[in-house]
Amino acid sequence: MTITIAIDCMGGDHGPSVTVPAVFDFLGRDPDCTAILVGREDSLRPLLAGAAKFGDRIRVRHASEIVEMHESVATALRTKKDSSMRVAADLVKDGTADAAVSAGNTGALMAVSRFVLKTLPGIDRPAIATILPTARGHSYVLDLGANVDCSAEHLLQFGVMGTLLLSALEHRDRPSVGLLNIGEEELKGNEVVRQAAELFKESDLNFVGNVEGDDIWKGAVDVVVCDGFVGNVVLKSSEGLAQMIAGGLKDEFSRNILTKMAAIMALPVIRAFKRRFDHRAYNGASLLGLKGIVFKSHGSADAYAFRCAIERAAEAARQRLPEKIATRMAALHSTMPISSAA
Amino acid sequence: MTITIAIDCMGGDHGPSVTVPAVFDFLGRDPDCTAILVGREDSLRPLLAGAAKFGDRIRVRHASEIVEMHESVATALRTKKDSSMRVAADLVKDGTADAAVSAGNTGALMAVSRFVLKTLPGIDRPAIATILPTARGHSYVLDLGANVDCSAEHLLQFGVMGTLLLSALEHRDRPSVGLLNIGEEELKGNEVVRQAAELFKESDLNFVGNVEGDDIWKGAVDVVVCDGFVGNVVLKSSEGLAQMIAGGLKDEFSRNILTKMAAIMALPVIRAFKRRFDHRAYNGASLLGLKGIVFKSHGSADAYAFRCAIERAAEAARQRLPEKIATRMAALHSTMPISSAA
Repeated sequence: MTITIAIDCMGGDHGPSVTVPAVFDFLGRDPDCTAILVGREDSLRPLLAGAAKFGDRIRVRHASEIVEMHESVATALRTKKDSSMRVAADLVKDGTADAAVSAGNTGALMAVSRFVLKTLPGIDRPAIATILPTARGHSYVLDLGANVDCSAEHLLQFGVMGTLLLSALEHRDRPSVGLLNIGEEELKGNEVVRQAAELFKESDLNFVGNVEGDDIWKGAVDVVVCDGFVGNVVLKSSEGLAQMIAGGLKDEFSRNILTKMAAIMALPVIRAFKRRFDHRAYNGASLLGLKGIVFKSHGSADAYAFRCAIERAAEAARQRLPEKIATRMAALHSTMPISSAA
Repeated sequence: MTITIAIDCMGGDHGPSVTVPAVFDFLGRDPDCTAILVGREDSLRPLLAGAAKFGDRIRVRHASEIVEMHESVATALRTKKDSSMRVAADLVKDGTADAAVSAGNTGALMAVSRFVLKTLPGIDRPAIATILPTARGHSYVLDLGANVDCSAEHLLQFGVMGTLLLSALEHRDRPSVGLLNIGEEELKGNEVVRQAAELFKESDLNFVGNVEGDDIWKGAVDVVVCDGFVGNVVLKSSEGLAQMIAGGLKDEFSRNILTKMAAIMALPVIRAFKRRFDHRAYNGASLLGLKGIVFKSHGSADAYAFRCAIERAAEAARQRLPEKIATRMAALHSTMPISSAA
């Protein structure tokens, strides 16, 4: 089966200079895939010297507009109907492509994808899932900011979607699922999480119970479920903390001639450490719950990281992830008294 | 003015072997303070060889019971009325002590303190505030788990209390305050945070607006306000991430003879880094909004860290923090249409 990926080549901090080489690299490694480069032809053409060897496996689809990184969702949706992001989603919608990948503005990408593709039956709200490195490997975390003020039913839907995403990308059945909660004795979490735990227990998910903030990094479960507010704050604060630690170490290693010598000695160790927790390898957040596959790359991704996001999108397409989510949601609704009202 | 601190000597992972030496160290540095060691006399007496030089500045108050670290709040409250934690709070309540410090179970300490001391007028819910190191120094964050499902008014109260805590401990007026929120374009945070932002703008706080997760570690504001669910998850996930990074670096440095040599070279640098972000120096979370001062030490604190918590409690007592909070809340209620209903 040939998988076709629509690439929003204009999104992200670097645009085509990163996205186009990433596509070449991807196509060179996966002979069963083809790509549609979406963006301004005048920006893309100068970068296509290496495209010849892929023949008709690579095509260009001109899109005259670009959703800028800090542009509003309203602008992206209403006034930029020929944006590279929008056209990539349209290509998934009309069946020309099996998945879309963009490094553009997350809010705009979610809004455009939701508008173009619509949500699957049984899903009230799409979610954003990412993969994080842990002490034991890696875990999936969702939602990361698409939904705040979630209900217990929404959290259950996130649990189902996260489980199926992991199964699709890693070919593993029954990954463990935990609900992110707090452990203070007095309260043991908020009302929604308490209700959600009951729904999770009744479901056929491999629910192991509540997990706390530190369990994310311990890799206590395969899939961590939380509302988008908490998920977004945890993700951003973790990025900030990692940057602070890296910056602090850099400061100390560059303090004087002795510390600089120590830095040279320590460099291979630091590099090995970076490889082990290389966030680039985890690039590619999934917009789940839509009638189509959309992956979001980090805006600052380099070609390697962007390629990782394309690979995830291709695998999700190969595994027909949206169909699997729809099937499972239908089964869940037939066995559990779950309202599908938003 | 002499300040008397009641020390729950039995709490924490190490009990009197840490708490008693910390008190000696504290009294040696602060001649205006006295301490009441609360706990089982048979556990405390053998450690009091060094107490003689402090004369009547150090006293022992026997308490026959101990609230264990994983004991339920109900047990602590209802069945352990002679616990060291409870007796320390009682000593604050009856005016014998100006503040209490405990390394015991957070949930139990909050429940016991709230039961014994009661909340200040104008405060619906007490909060837990801690200090975190940042790239620019340090910031105060609250709430950390005492309250989930907060209203906008609660968040405003947290903002007032956090501001006054910082002013009391650091003698600085008008610290900047930010509301923890998410930046996704589509939604810009949840309903409660949006409402809270309006209240903060109308208040006399030095409110600079919303901050995101990474801003905590950038030190973007002096005081970060969030609900207890989010605060607890962020704090625990940060601890987990820092441990994962430390563990990962340790693994890589101990991989072989070459990396071990690099570790020896890098050791002074790593130590300098640790000193800079030494979490022990930030030990001492404040239980705010009570009619009395209670500080919570990390359970795993060593004597240095525990002494830092005692010092914070002493300074809060010297600055009459609860009175200042009560005064400010009264002023706020007289100028703003704020419901004091929980």
